[in-house]
Amino acid sequence: MSESIPRVDLALVAGNQRPLAGYEAKHFQWSVADGVATIVLNRPERKNPLTFDSYAELRDLFHQLKWADDVKAVVLTGSGGNFCSGGDVHEIIGPLVRLKAPELLMFTRMTGELVKTMRTCPQPIVAAIDGVCAGAGAILAMASDLRLGTARSKTAFLFNRVGLAGCDMGACAMLPRIVGQGRASELLYTGRALGGEEGERWGFFNRLCAPEEVLAEAQKLAAQLTEGPSFANGITKTMLHQEWAMTIEQAIEAEAQAQALCMLTQDFTRAYEAFVAKQKPVFKGD
Amino acid sequence: MSESIPRVDLALVAGNQRPLAGYEAKHFQWSVADGVATIVLNRPERKNPLTFDSYAELRDLFHQLKWADDVKAVVLTGSGGNFCSGGDVHEIIGPLVRLKAPELLMFTRMTGELVKTMRTCPQPIVAAIDGVCAGAGAILAMASDLRLGTARSKTAFLFNRVGLAGCDMGACAMLPRIVGQGRASELLYTGRALGGEEGERWGFFNRLCAPEEVLAEAQKLAAQLTEGPSFANGITKTMLHQEWAMTIEQAIEAEAQAQALCMLTQDFTRAYEAFVAKQKPVFKGD
Amino acid sequence: MSESIPRVDLALVAGNQRPLAGYEAKHFQWSVADGVATIVLNRPERKNPLTFDSYAELRDLFHQLKWADDVKAVVLTGSGGNFCSGGDVHEIIGPLVRLKAPELLMFTRMTGELVKTMRTCPQPIVAAIDGVCAGAGAILAMASDLRLGTARSKTAFLFNRVGLAGCDMGACAMLPRIVGQGRASELLYTGRALGGEEGERWGFFNRLCAPEEVLAEAQKLAAQLTEGPSFANGITKTMLHQEWAMTIEQAIEAEAQAQALCMLTQDFTRAYEAFVAKQKPVFKGD
Repeated sequence: MSESIPRVDLALVAGNQRPLAGYEAKHFQWSVADGVATIVLNRPERKNPLTFDSYAELRDLFHQLKWADDVKAVVLTGSGGNFCSGGDVHEIIGPLVRLKAPELLMFTRMTGELVKTMRTCPQPIVAAIDGVCAGAGAILAMASDLRLGTARSKTAFLFNRVGLAGCDMGACAMLPRIVGQGRASELLYTGRALGGEEGERWGFFNRLCAPEEVLAEAQKLAAQLTEGPSFANGITKTMLHQEWAMTIEQAIEAEAQAQALCMLTQDFTRAYEAFVAKQKPVFKGD
Repeated sequence: MSESIPRVDLALVAGNQRPLAGYEAKHFQWSVADGVATIVLNRPERKNPLTFDSYAELRDLFHQLKWADDVKAVVLTGSGGNFCSGGDVHEIIGPLVRLKAPELLMFTRMTGELVKTMRTCPQPIVAAIDGVCAGAGAILAMASDLRLGTARSKTAFLFNRVGLAGCDMGACAMLPRIVGQGRASELLYTGRALGGEEGERWGFFNRLCAPEEVLAEAQKLAAQLTEGPSFANGITKTMLHQEWAMTIEQAIEAEAQAQALCMLTQDFTRAYEAFVAKQKPVFKGD
Repeated sequence: MSESIPRVDLALVAGNQRPLAGYEAKHFQWSVADGVATIVLNRPERKNPLTFDSYAELRDLFHQLKWADDVKAVVLTGSGGNFCSGGDVHEIIGPLVRLKAPELLMFTRMTGELVKTMRTCPQPIVAAIDGVCAGAGAILAMASDLRLGTARSKTAFLFNRVGLAGCDMGACAMLPRIVGQGRASELLYTGRALGGEEGERWGFFNRLCAPEEVLAEAQKLAAQLTEGPSFANGITKTMLHQEWAMTIEQAIEAEAQAQALCMLTQDFTRAYEAFVAKQKPVFKGD
């Protein structure tokens, strides 16, 4: 395959003409450096709660990331020593107690859609979690691909503390696959906080960092991922999602097709040529 | 919604008129205090084996719990320092070796039905496990929602020691989700005993207690759950079960519907009102 | 059931007349002792890479094991202090970069088929893993039933290091069920090596052994399994595979049928009779 065939911008192919590096976020901070986007939930005086507006903007942004070629990995964090305190009591829970069934379903579908867009965008999401990580905040952590925590972080699926079920935005499906069915059941039935060390021991956190370093470490990990074959990494993410409820036979066939596609990329050829030349491969994501 | 609408007893709605607090068990001990039922397998001289009778009574009791409004959580334990030694060799295995295929299937379906009723009643089940926890006893532990163990407890899926397969009452589906596929395989292929500390490390046990305290601790945990929103906790249990083999998208839609339903409960309103009034919410399960 | 009914050789029933104990392998070492087969990947100067030939021979051999009555368990290892370095760069990756889509799919389906045959033969597979366990080598380890490792072993799903996705031969389905979704994601996105102690802590390894003992320990464990009820153990393996994506209800019904079948074996009767006679049962796999 010749390198002289001009490469078409993926965003154009998808009819999505705005690169996301220049996106101006309204309800959180958004910045992109070297292909790594950083989202900072940024209402530190309330421990970074979610509102109807920030939920919806996150949902739409992760949806657009599906076709964004200029962002290769995403870091998600909160400001002021906390990750996210979940749905704001005054701005979300207050209105919800007055809604009717169809309106409530509209809301729960909207929040669930955010998890869907986080799981279906091709960029790996690295959550940097310090301090409070509660309710919907714990869900955003859970819906990320990788999680760096701190010893003092407190992750609480505290839905039952506000009279709700633990089945929020996919928690009953996803949390058991991360920490095991028995441990997930405890967190969801009791709403108790999972500490940092316990969370690492259970596999919720990939590792712990010092509070002042967790964001930088997450960005470093994300940057490392962007140096890899980003198209192939996106396929890894897609297949982790697709194979969730497949039989082993179905999963193997799905992977045979997906990997054959990756074997047709220039990145695969580059890796081989670099190996033969005893060099480190430089991946370009095509 | 007005509090003045009289509440209808759930047992009546389901046509199930006998509250279970007064149930008189024949083949084990049954008691209910403050919404917490305690089942004690009680043949300590044989380490609390199961018999055809006790299997069937447990199956029918957990089936009735589906419509019982006066029991909010269940504790399952054994007497005399052991949990349960499994199917009795003389009273179960002896007869089984003389049965024909249709009769055997009747038996394995009956025992499997017990696991189904344990997983589909809305009450969280907390197992208090000391000493021997073997064969079908290990299954009852596995089919509970939460497990408190002791350091000296020995949990053995010892089916292959009696010439059988590890696939008993759902073990090949459920155990891998609790402790991981590799560890579950080892337990099921070898029948070896899992010690208490190892079991905690693997996530089989939620935590370990002193032998003389494990039942009281389980009852305390169950009581804590009954103080929570019991309707919502029942939905948590239902969804952990329902989403077992769903895709992530299906799970998120299922949770959107289930959680919207919970948002229509008084418990949710109470939690919000208590928060605004800076009080601790008192949940009533409606 | 009378012991006087002559037993028919299973290989004959399946139309597969060659016992595998005498199989002469071309691309690895194969030996059988007391029902335990040992496969040694044996190109130590290259850390035991896989080639088109060895892949295909392994696939065909595990396929034949489905009907082999003289092999009850399989040990898989590598020679010279390493397990397997994966697909050979010169003999596999070099050719692959020149292939077209249909040819690549033929290759990925062939390698996936090896995992399918490993998961669907009735013999438990014990991997003895020392040193390098990389790429497709890590997949062979993952596709085994039980894994013994060494502290110095390095297991790396390094597909993204060569420009490929982590979805190779079922990895995105199987690895998360062994070590949890978060830890599997890290291994698959980064390609980093999992050390022995970490691997034991995560449940990837069942236990660690000294390098000079890991093969003997794996063979001892395999021999222990062959002393068990091998028909029933094969059913355990089959059901762990079958129930992968079933609901709990489906799994319980499937197990009711499978276990009823095992209750009709002589091994079950033998176990009961041995118990009554206070003897250790001798299982024969029928």
